[in-house]
Amino acid sequence: MITQENGFFTEEDSVEVVTSRNSNAKSERLKQAMDVVIRKLHEAVKEIEPSQEEWMEAIQFLTQTGATCNDWRQEFILLSDVLGVSMLVDAINNRKPSGASESTVLGPFHVAEAPELPMGSNICLDQKGEDMFIQGLILDTSGQPIADAVIDVWQANDEGFYDVQQKGIQPDFNLRGVFRTGKDGRYWFRAVKPKYYPIPDDGPVGQLLSDLGRHPYRPAHLHYIIKAVGFETLTTHIFDPKDPYINSDAVFGVKRSLLAEFVKVDDRTRSVAYGFEGDFWEVVHDFVLAEER
Amino acid sequence: MITQENGFFTEEDSVEVVTSRNSNAKSERLKQAMDVVIRKLHEAVKEIEPSQEEWMEAIQFLTQTGATCNDWRQEFILLSDVLGVSMLVDAINNRKPSGASESTVLGPFHVAEAPELPMGSNICLDQKGEDMFIQGLILDTSGQPIADAVIDVWQANDEGFYDVQQKGIQPDFNLRGVFRTGKDGRYWFRAVKPKYYPIPDDGPVGQLLSDLGRHPYRPAHLHYIIKAVGFETLTTHIFDPKDPYINSDAVFGVKRSLLAEFVKVDDRTRSVAYGFEGDFWEVVHDFVLAEER
Repeated sequence: MITQENGFFTEEDSVEVVTSRNSNAKSERLKQAMDVVIRKLHEAVKEIEPSQEEWMEAIQFLTQTGATCNDWRQEFILLSDVLGVSMLVDAINNRKPSGASESTVLGPFHVAEAPELPMGSNICLDQKGEDMFIQGLILDTSGQPIADAVIDVWQANDEGFYDVQQKGIQPDFNLRGVFRTGKDGRYWFRAVKPKYYPIPDDGPVGQLLSDLGRHPYRPAHLHYIIKAVGFETLTTHIFDPKDPYINSDAVFGVKRSLLAEFVKVDDRTRSVAYGFEGDFWEVVHDFVLAEER
Repeated sequence: MITQENGFFTEEDSVEVVTSRNSNAKSERLKQAMDVVIRKLHEAVKEIEPSQEEWMEAIQFLTQTGATCNDWRQEFILLSDVLGVSMLVDAINNRKPSGASESTVLGPFHVAEAPELPMGSNICLDQKGEDMFIQGLILDTSGQPIADAVIDVWQANDEGFYDVQQKGIQPDFNLRGVFRTGKDGRYWFRAVKPKYYPIPDDGPVGQLLSDLGRHPYRPAHLHYIIKAVGFETLTTHIFDPKDPYINSDAVFGVKRSLLAEFVKVDDRTRSVAYGFEGDFWEVVHDFVLAEER
């Protein structure tokens, strides 16, 4: 007699046979999560029907992904990123009320101890790239400005590299800064136009992208973490909608509401006021924070 | 306008946004498999709704699983084993016609170059354990004996270790042998009663089993690979139904049809004939090979 109670394996009952073993799990949450993982894994295997060789290829892929991880490289997070899982987890954990700005992934290049700077500072410390002026308002969902909002910004340079990727080439804390709004909720600072860049693609995840006919690029963006007392912290980017990769971000970070306008400005008076040599790019983008729940 | 064509991420359309990028995959099979993997992964995340911390725990688990792999240890295969995936892949690739013996997983302890021995040989080379006599027939699905069937057997010893796990302690090729049937399709050999044993449980997979309230043991079994010209190769085990872990094999290898009877025999004449000192265990088990398709 083949029943689940005797624990014997059958192809048909594989999910029940395996999940029935989890009844003594130390945590109800782990049991629930592993029941789902096992069910979805078996569903995937039953739909794909991998040969033994294909199964071994999958094992080898995971093994190589593990072997690529080290203290400064996390290939499993990269895998999660390129399969859209990181964005999905971000979305699930950051469902915002109507009118509030949307989140996107943090990414691996945030630095906790970036310096707080006077509003208006130029975060570009090496004069490389096309000048840019960024400004906007930090608002609540009723449209009122938020004072004392802390805005942590960071971006890649005009060649697509973050300072931490080019230690000794870029100055420390290049293109990073923390700003604090006044009563008017306004923020503004100077920087350079960011550029698209590839995620690390010399490992198994890069090979997978290539095999799937996908490129490894992220469209140009600025990162923001915006905090204010009484509000949910917002971790997001703004993107250049004219970037060649705007419709195909390798990590799926782009949402419609995160597109900003990057406008070329030819205004000698403003250039002089900002200390720029000539034309500059301007981005005007407001953020709306959700009240803390 | 939020459409899949622009590639922008939404929680609702996450599967379509991600899988739509696979349209230029170099292989149609890879595209198909990754479409399923992505869909099932996203379904799992949407059902579990992991917090960012739980997602990071999953990333760390995979990373540690990778870090545990080396030239002689494959923790991802072990993970596949304890989640029933290895058995499922085996089942999918070894659907047998009615009446043919069922398969089970190969396991990591097969050795390709085990010696071919005269029928009846004792594969126990160190006189440790309780004597056992194993015999049976290799048949086709019409019940006719198969001549020149090659039977490759291996097993753990009475302490639950394979020779390759105890090099220098057990003799090389202890409890392994290859036998060839005559016209009558019969096989018989001498060995010792095998014992249950734990899968390697000092890594992240062992920790997962413990957290799930599961033990790491496999019930006592003998491994068989049976080959014959014109027939599908059969990779299987036979199990002792009285083993304490028979209903809870850590890797789900037990199927109803793989239970054999381990009978204690007190027969002085036979003991003397087999060169045993006293009582012995006897297993009589036939195998039915499926014709090659």
